Amino acid sequence: MSAKPNAPKKVVLAYSGGLDTSIILKWLKTEYDCEVVTFTADLGQGEELDPARKKAEMLGVAPENIFIEDLREEFVRDFVFPMFRANALYEGLYLLGTSIARPLISKRLVEIAAQTGADAVAHGATGKGNDQVRFELAAYALNPDIKVIAPWREWDLTSRTKLLEFAEANQIPIAKDKRGEAPFSVDANLLHTSSEGKVLENPADDAPDYVYQRTVNPEDAPDTPEFIEISFEKGDATAINGESMSPATILTALNEYGRKHGVGRLDFVENRFVGMKSRGIYETPGGTILLEAHRGIEQITLDSGAGHLKDSLMPRYAELIYNGFWFSPEREMLQAAIDKSQEHVTGTVRLKLYKGSVRTVGRWSEHSLYSEAHVTFEDDAGAYDQKDAAGFIQLNALRLKLLAARNRRLKG
Amino acid sequence: MSAKPNAPKKVVLAYSGGLDTSIILKWLKTEYDCEVVTFTADLGQGEELDPARKKAEMLGVAPENIFIEDLREEFVRDFVFPMFRANALYEGLYLLGTSIARPLISKRLVEIAAQTGADAVAHGATGKGNDQVRFELAAYALNPDIKVIAPWREWDLTSRTKLLEFAEANQIPIAKDKRGEAPFSVDANLLHTSSEGKVLENPADDAPDYVYQRTVNPEDAPDTPEFIEISFEKGDATAINGESMSPATILTALNEYGRKHGVGRLDFVENRFVGMKSRGIYETPGGTILLEAHRGIEQITLDSGAGHLKDSLMPRYAELIYNGFWFSPEREMLQAAIDKSQEHVTGTVRLKLYKGSVRTVGRWSEHSLYSEAHVTFEDDAGAYDQKDAAGFIQLNALRLKLLAARNRRLKG
Amino acid sequence: MSAKPNAPKKVVLAYSGGLDTSIILKWLKTEYDCEVVTFTADLGQGEELDPARKKAEMLGVAPENIFIEDLREEFVRDFVFPMFRANALYEGLYLLGTSIARPLISKRLVEIAAQTGADAVAHGATGKGNDQVRFELAAYALNPDIKVIAPWREWDLTSRTKLLEFAEANQIPIAKDKRGEAPFSVDANLLHTSSEGKVLENPADDAPDYVYQRTVNPEDAPDTPEFIEISFEKGDATAINGESMSPATILTALNEYGRKHGVGRLDFVENRFVGMKSRGIYETPGGTILLEAHRGIEQITLDSGAGHLKDSLMPRYAELIYNGFWFSPEREMLQAAIDKSQEHVTGTVRLKLYKGSVRTVGRWSEHSLYSEAHVTFEDDAGAYDQKDAAGFIQLNALRLKLLAARNRRLKG
Amino acid sequence: MSAKPNAPKKVVLAYSGGLDTSIILKWLKTEYDCEVVTFTADLGQGEELDPARKKAEMLGVAPENIFIEDLREEFVRDFVFPMFRANALYEGLYLLGTSIARPLISKRLVEIAAQTGADAVAHGATGKGNDQVRFELAAYALNPDIKVIAPWREWDLTSRTKLLEFAEANQIPIAKDKRGEAPFSVDANLLHTSSEGKVLENPADDAPDYVYQRTVNPEDAPDTPEFIEISFEKGDATAINGESMSPATILTALNEYGRKHGVGRLDFVENRFVGMKSRGIYETPGGTILLEAHRGIEQITLDSGAGHLKDSLMPRYAELIYNGFWFSPEREMLQAAIDKSQEHVTGTVRLKLYKGSVRTVGRWSEHSLYSEAHVTFEDDAGAYDQKDAAGFIQLNALRLKLLAARNRRLKG
Repeated sequence: MSAKPNAPKKVVLAYSGGLDTSIILKWLKTEYDCEVVTFTADLGQGEELDPARKKAEMLGVAPENIFIEDLREEFVRDFVFPMFRANALYEGLYLLGTSIARPLISKRLVEIAAQTGADAVAHGATGKGNDQVRFELAAYALNPDIKVIAPWREWDLTSRTKLLEFAEANQIPIAKDKRGEAPFSVDANLLHTSSEGKVLENPADDAPDYVYQRTVNPEDAPDTPEFIEISFEKGDATAINGESMSPATILTALNEYGRKHGVGRLDFVENRFVGMKSRGIYETPGGTILLEAHRGIEQITLDSGAGHLKDSLMPRYAELIYNGFWFSPEREMLQAAIDKSQEHVTGTVRLKLYKGSVRTVGRWSEHSLYSEAHVTFEDDAGAYDQKDAAGFIQLNALRLKLLAARNRRLKG
Repeated sequence: MSAKPNAPKKVVLAYSGGLDTSIILKWLKTEYDCEVVTFTADLGQGEELDPARKKAEMLGVAPENIFIEDLREEFVRDFVFPMFRANALYEGLYLLGTSIARPLISKRLVEIAAQTGADAVAHGATGKGNDQVRFELAAYALNPDIKVIAPWREWDLTSRTKLLEFAEANQIPIAKDKRGEAPFSVDANLLHTSSEGKVLENPADDAPDYVYQRTVNPEDAPDTPEFIEISFEKGDATAINGESMSPATILTALNEYGRKHGVGRLDFVENRFVGMKSRGIYETPGGTILLEAHRGIEQITLDSGAGHLKDSLMPRYAELIYNGFWFSPEREMLQAAIDKSQEHVTGTVRLKLYKGSVRTVGRWSEHSLYSEAHVTFEDDAGAYDQKDAAGFIQLNALRLKLLAARNRRLKG
Repeated sequence: MSAKPNAPKKVVLAYSGGLDTSIILKWLKTEYDCEVVTFTADLGQGEELDPARKKAEMLGVAPENIFIEDLREEFVRDFVFPMFRANALYEGLYLLGTSIARPLISKRLVEIAAQTGADAVAHGATGKGNDQVRFELAAYALNPDIKVIAPWREWDLTSRTKLLEFAEANQIPIAKDKRGEAPFSVDANLLHTSSEGKVLENPADDAPDYVYQRTVNPEDAPDTPEFIEISFEKGDATAINGESMSPATILTALNEYGRKHGVGRLDFVENRFVGMKSRGIYETPGGTILLEAHRGIEQITLDSGAGHLKDSLMPRYAELIYNGFWFSPEREMLQAAIDKSQEHVTGTVRLKLYKGSVRTVGRWSEHSLYSEAHVTFEDDAGAYDQKDAAGFIQLNALRLKLLAARNRRLKG
Repeated sequence: MSAKPNAPKKVVLAYSGGLDTSIILKWLKTEYDCEVVTFTADLGQGEELDPARKKAEMLGVAPENIFIEDLREEFVRDFVFPMFRANALYEGLYLLGTSIARPLISKRLVEIAAQTGADAVAHGATGKGNDQVRFELAAYALNPDIKVIAPWREWDLTSRTKLLEFAEANQIPIAKDKRGEAPFSVDANLLHTSSEGKVLENPADDAPDYVYQRTVNPEDAPDTPEFIEISFEKGDATAINGESMSPATILTALNEYGRKHGVGRLDFVENRFVGMKSRGIYETPGGTILLEAHRGIEQITLDSGAGHLKDSLMPRYAELIYNGFWFSPEREMLQAAIDKSQEHVTGTVRLKLYKGSVRTVGRWSEHSLYSEAHVTFEDDAGAYDQKDAAGFIQLNALRLKLLAARNRRLKG
């Protein structure tokens, strides 16, 4: 078989070890007669990675071309935490769990391509979703000459039947539970689990209980609230209940708290970058706790000018991450502004977890800007002169008075 | 007693019937030798208004100078609902329950001043808070020549003892429970109840249970979730479970749902416009449900371009309301943009209420933009050509590639 | 010849009468065996339209399929003027002369398609530029089922030689000056003339003098300044030197003033929506005067709150127009906000035109918010109490003081 | 004379050596019986500083309490240049020449107070303007406990006559030309000269020629254009015509170019932070050239994502500087974002200066993102595939099509 014109010579594939990416692995070899390097990352999706190695070997990948890495700490430290400094929410509600993982995977794909002399990378995202955009924008931003292969946009394996036929024809083992079609599609990492498609496609219908995999049903959560304390340094969580932990360890621990109390479920219809609406069920147990806690610590440590600017930049920042522009100058500009604001976001928040909700109930910090002396209903010993408010109001009102006078004048 | 220079001749006082505004009523007469008109509004604060009339009469206000009005429908229709079209949250979390009520009160104060020939209005807000600003900016925006009297910024009744002495000296009746100091200060209307001050002044401490007045403790809420459906027309709620209701009736009904399920509690440290941080406990039962529902219906009926623009304008819009600029050209400009976006925000949302939380679980609409044909994992019959995504990504990536090429070139 | 699958049956072509769109006309017939309707609009590009009719007839278009329209008033009234209300500038400098014309052309193409039963529209924009995007987004926004044919992205007439061969083979007359290649490409309408490509492609090189077609060289402009007065009503220009005129007449007159004084030249490198940078020479004589004048009248009639909000929205608004999203919900939302701000932008501006520049030198209005009583260095008779400024500053400073105190405390 | 309660013990006065600040110097001593330290800075206002020293001595200031400093380099390097990185314009036109100088003066006042053990600073700005706000916010942000004395808001020297009487009574020499009232008020520094008040107070009237002090009338400028080249490194100007210069030297040189060619005049009505409109005549010769040049170099070196974000942040950034919030967290956040964007804003711009205008006519850079290969009308050798544009447009259009389909469906 001769290679197609402009065909890749060597491809680094984002490989999960599952059926779909195994089919892609074989298809790449068949279609392009190219060498395939597999990259399998532990981003906290909760799956063993060893099977992926074995399967890659079985599918003919040379041992030196099999890359398996635990990226959990890098993921949380360099992607999740910077994003949480911004209190980022896409369209008001979505914590961007899938979006934030893609740039890291692309970064490693491109780096492994450089290391192994590959001229292309490949991913298993479809042509309808956001992930293709995120993978590819990140890849091109890091290597403008890289080729990106997106088999789902290219091949003719457009039905379950064809995929399974291809798998059988190529000796790709098919797990029993993959023979039938899954009732929905799942993506998971340390930050979240998302489910979408099929049984979830009608946004009018309640999501079936079995869709939720990462959190207990709030009704099944403990009948007694649990209180925890999260400490922050410069905007990043550093300890739970006084115990210091690494970024990934903290998120893992918060996930367990959230799972137990049914925190972080979201039934959501969102606008994809590619132009359509889509319905997803998101479970972000630890992230939901973390967002609440981060807001809680900012409440006392962040100045209003900084906070309001952050709030006004956040939607744009979240949109950039959602759309796949992590590695873009404008995301980096916004990050510089956000990080600048976090220098004193240090302190501790007390939270109540109970049957699906998390609420801040206390916060304290050496860096607090809260001044009981100023706000008190009691005697403030001269900290604040109430008469200043009169002048403050007069000058804020001046333009409104001039407007009212203009309107009155014109009316006669 | 001769009037002071520039003293008001006739003042319309925002009068609750309580001790503080009764003291103000007497103080105004004493201080300025002026006629006092009282204005008492039912904004849904849950208090009888009749006692206010009797008390005003007893304090010497002429019957024709006593104004008592039920403003609940106007409040919800013209202030609360327009604000909810924006999904307005101040500093990410606060539903602006106090802020949104002040402009309406000022509007009526100014109108009654015009009607009764008064040259001034007066309010009972202190010199430390936001409410003085909101009352006064609204008043000046509606009548640039109105005088505003803020006794708390002027008088020397600066301690509880002095206030009570003044009350006794002026035959103002003091309810038994007002003899001692309240452990915190409360504001309430149909949208929310806020509590702040004194026992709440340390933001590290949990708020005592007795602070919450409007919602049951989530632990005491029913063990079984309740599902309700809210219908919207052009962004405003119009029906619950298929039953059409007026704006105030809907909010009242949602408040009852929220109360029962412990929904809408917020322990919050916010930045006041006057420059200090302050801690408040907010209970917004119906409003919290309404916000979730409005977001839910927007998810399927609002275009992403419109939605993202709304999201980016929201923080500014919320800040304007918080700071008291309801009657300002820029709030009206933003309202024009927001209202324009709501023309198709029509449909129904299904919500689950359970032990302190409210979650959207379904939504449907004749105006839906959700296209199962486009998003489906199944055969989409040509609705969407996945190959288009390749071009979409290439052109979105072009500038990122040019950046990467520049960086590579410069590095040699 | 049999039609291709999915081929259009009847196409409305944006037809200039020039060589390129004549070739497209023939190519459409050849390629798709379809009926062609031509649409030629007078947008003030300064060309006779009669030759277009004759040429279309000669190329076999049925008389009832030839549409020639003078759209100048609609163009200025419904597109240019609304845009100028926003003071729109793309990337700080470009007055969007090309961008704003495309949606109107598309609107008429789609309307004529409906009228004539055509299932497609076609345009002569290339695959590298912004105009294809603008034409097509507008068309799809107005008719989601319309087909759009963009021959430059489809055909193989990819060189000048091939085009001329096709023209000759199809009996398309070629004007003498079109035999050779033009040294640059031009677009013109009542708002501007743009030139780009070829001799202009190196942004380091001065544009040759002969590129400028619409304005005299400032060095050749009159040695004496000229002063004119432009009057506005609700944000739109309505009179010059006291003489009322229709929108298109005003812009035409301003173009003549600008031409004479060399006003409105711009040598610019911009970012195209499709991802690359491009260099253009723009001449916007009347528009440049209009922008300056509009800013001048806003200076005295627009409140600062409204003005600053407008300023902050403008870049997004300009980007939307540049990118082709005129017919989008978010542009309409912004327009609603902008139009709301213009209710009192009524009055007159005096301008000085001199050798390439236009400057506001005076402005007056019944709607003015300028208060000499407040601003005067002389005695202001109590209009403004300077002591208010102390309180204003104290409360604006409060958070900054709390920040400084925090920083001092932490440093020990 | 006994000091007033809370009176300052030692005050650092921003002292120009002119009549007004000399009166303040004496008044401070008289009013507060305090020690006075004078601070006179050379910010490029074009006045000799030696007379200020002599006059301070004559008015009884101890030599060790007289501070005279040349701050021109610090002014341009740390204030003007960072601001120009943002292309900052207040209300679309004003280059913020006065605003940007105030924080530096306050910074030195506060530092000298710390050095000399003073507990207060004083300035000569009135209670109607912005400068009082800028001086004081900066001072409080740097030292929360500093007292600020603003004599114009306190004293009763409210007329020219009273001021002159006070001067005579206190042996303060009065220059002959100060006996009468100046026809307008002037502020100057290396960036600009502003004139306002009195003869300028009617914004309808042309400013008299004699108001302009810093630039020749364009009619009197040379009849031949002059071309210059400005080089930038990371957003800051570093050379003119290839000659490297320090920041202040560059601005000084550009001022001379601008002066000669009549560049940088602005007749402007602006919105003061304190709520009123005011009319000023600004001359910013070098700054106007610098802004044009900076935009020119950004055109080829700045990515569109970064540039559009900058454009959208600019109005807020300019407003912060205008309002006096230079030393605020939000200005620093924006600066961090802006500075991040300037890493590659390096290269050279060629400008044409002619009779009042400055225009970019060429720009080039090693850091250029302009790709002739992509943009060319000629064969681009595969750099860009025009077919990608079809997919790009289809996906950008998708939501617009869904909107149009919804609207069509609802209309029946």
